[in-house]
Parts: sequence; C-alpha cells; structure tokens
Amino acid sequence: MVIKEDMLLYKGRKHLKPEIKTISDFDNSSAHETELRMNLHTGTHLDAPLHMIPEGADSNQLLENDLFYRAKVVPIVEQEKKITLRQLQQLEIEAGDFIIFKTKNSQPNYLKNHPKEFIYLAKDAAKYLSNKAIQGVGIDSIGIERNQSGHPTHKSILGKEIMILEGLRLKDVPAGKYVLMLAPLKIKASDALPLRAVLYEKQELIDKLDFLL
Amino acid sequence: MVIKEDMLLYKGRKHLKPEIKTISDFDNSSAHETELRMNLHTGTHLDAPLHMIPEGADSNQLLENDLFYRAKVVPIVEQEKKITLRQLQQLEIEAGDFIIFKTKNSQPNYLKNHPKEFIYLAKDAAKYLSNKAIQGVGIDSIGIERNQSGHPTHKSILGKEIMILEGLRLKDVPAGKYVLMLAPLKIKASDALPLRAVLYEKQELIDKLDFLL
Repeated sequence: MVIKEDMLLYKGRKHLKPEIKTISDFDNSSAHETELRMNLHTGTHLDAPLHMIPEGADSNQLLENDLFYRAKVVPIVEQEKKITLRQLQQLEIEAGDFIIFKTKNSQPNYLKNHPKEFIYLAKDAAKYLSNKAIQGVGIDSIGIERNQSGHPTHKSILGKEIMILEGLRLKDVPAGKYVLMLAPLKIKASDALPLRAVLYEKQELIDKLDFLL
Repeated sequence: MVIKEDMLLYKGRKHLKPEIKTISDFDNSSAHETELRMNLHTGTHLDAPLHMIPEGADSNQLLENDLFYRAKVVPIVEQEKKITLRQLQQLEIEAGDFIIFKTKNSQPNYLKNHPKEFIYLAKDAAKYLSNKAIQGVGIDSIGIERNQSGHPTHKSILGKEIMILEGLRLKDVPAGKYVLMLAPLKIKASDALPLRAVLYEKQELIDKLDFLL
C-alpha cells in the first residue's frame, strides 16, 4: 500500500491515519525533511505474535526470517463475507507455502466503500491453516480478521509462529505460484513491521538477476 | 540499520531519535500496538532530489525504480576524513553501476565514538561520480556529506537523479560485486524513503530462488 494521509485505514478508523509532516523546507533551511508518525498496523505489514499473544515473540524474531518465499495466490471467488474452512479444504496446501488470499477486497473501491465489511479469514479456517506447517498467510485487506471475539484467527496462526501479512494490493495479480519477497523495516522489539512485499514470477526474477551481473 | 531508540543518529543529534511507542497493550486492550515516529533521514534510507533541491523530484519518482541493481562494494582503505576524487579515479566505474563505499565508518564503534567525524564523499569526487551515468551511490554512514557549505555533494548527485543510499551496515561485507536489493516503503511525496537494503551474491540468490519453486 502507498503510505499517504488519505490511505485506507482498518475499519476506516481515523486515529490510524499516518501523519507525514514536513519539518524543514527551503523557506527555513537548506534541506527538506519529513517526519512520519504511523501505527505499525497501518498499511502493508507483518504481525508479530506479540500483537495478539501476551508473552508472544516480538519483531526481533521476524527479522531472523528469510526474505524470499514460495507463495500461492489463491482466489476466493465465492462472494461471502469470510473465507471458510470448506473453501480451504479444496485447496492444495503444502508445508512451507506462503498462502495469499485474493478476495472481493481487491475489487476496485470495494474496501473504500465498505471499510468495515472486508472479507476475513474465519476462525475455523484459520485453525485448519495453522496446522498445515505453512510459512505465512496473506490477505488483501488491512486486517485478516474482524468481529470475532478474542481474535481467534490471529491467535491460531500467530500461536504457531506463522506469519500474518496484511494490506496486500492484489487487483492486478492473477492467481498462481510466485516468489514472494518480504522486506520489512528492521524495527526492534515491536508488534508489527511495515514492509515492502512483492510477488515475482520465478523466471522473471531469475532473468532480471542474470541481466545484472 | 536496526530502528531503535538508542540507534546511531546523524552527527548524534538527539532530535533525530525515533520514538517507538506502545499505544495499547494487554493491560488496557486485547491487542498490542506500536506507533513509530521517525525522521525519514534516520536509519537506512534513500534520498529523493527534493531533499536538497527546491523543485526536485519527490519520492514518487523513486517508487518507479526497479528493486534490483548491480552493485560494487568499493573499499576506501586510506584513513582520510573524506573520499577524494583521486581515490575514485583509480576505480573501474561503469554506467549502470550502484557504487557503495565501505570506509572507516564500518569499523566497530567508529561512528559511535566519532558521530561527527564520519567519512564522507568530497564535493569534487561527487561531481566526478555524477557524470558517470551510475544508478546510485551508497555509504556506510548516516549521511554522505558533512560540513560542505550548500551541500554540493548531494546536489551534484541528486541533480542527475542518481540515488543516494545512506545508513548502510557493511562491517561484514567484503569488497566485490553483488546484487543489491532496495525495497523502500512506499511513502508518497516525501523527501526520503526508509528501506530494507540487502546485498546478495548473484549465485546465492539464484540458488535460493531455484529452491523455492
């Protein structure tokens, strides 16, 4: 997601709006400098277990992780309000996968017009996924869960130290297999990491690298 | 660089210290959330031309760039206070390179003990580099320049829309050729972008990708 003051916010909550402030410019200085103030769960980010689990691991553990993953972008075509266990049971999920759900959230203006009605991962589906030895799960809304008392979806997944990747923009991404690059900022001891997340076709990426050296 | 409250700051200036604030925890909420307040020139970051050039391009232009570059890590072995034109004239610099200087700044505790005496790129050396059609220039201090009136080093390089990458940690990086991955956060219309910057040996990276899919 692009970080800007009028960006999409979780459930449209204004207190989550980032502040991007010019603290010096050429009227008063020889340099133009900007300061960012942002909740780390705004925009595209990884959750650390600490986000929902008291005594859970913080971002220091996430920073030990590799930056490249085998990702599967999975279309959720039924227009329901959540991703269900039944939908997941039809998928081929292998240990080590990074599963990314592309849902109605990716339709133009859906989240803008329905900020509180994003498609989320239901708790029984999350429990099922958490037992699959996957590396992570990503979604095209700012949160992976809403209106489930006690945050059972987060807790199932983070409890197994599987990554949760929120705030993906998938409108132009077809379903399929990809190399997922996750490049989080190295913020110490926090409960989330804003990051750049990019999907590459494997051959596209290898060709790019071959060209370089 | 790891972003934390006791990190190295440009010239040790305390007002540049990031603030990492817990805004909710399990004493008062069902979720742990953190907010970051940070000058965008703190830590590892890319400068946009707007940082030093009135009417210069802002970060929107940087976000159009590719994420992978052909990098050369160049050791500056003479223990001078700056990188000089004479030192650069001995190097093989090709169009399209991303040149990264590894200097005395990378010695353990050098910057911590001498925050105002970092090795920088002298203005005549910057002018020379800016005429080489390189993609970017990186350095192992938080700034590429100090104590040069009017910031001529920044202006030469940014004036040619060559990237400046500051705040690299190179202690464990031998000189040589690498693939440089630059993954900036997508912050709109700013004068700098904090980012994850990683050097890979080409074959190491290709093997990693081959393993994935």
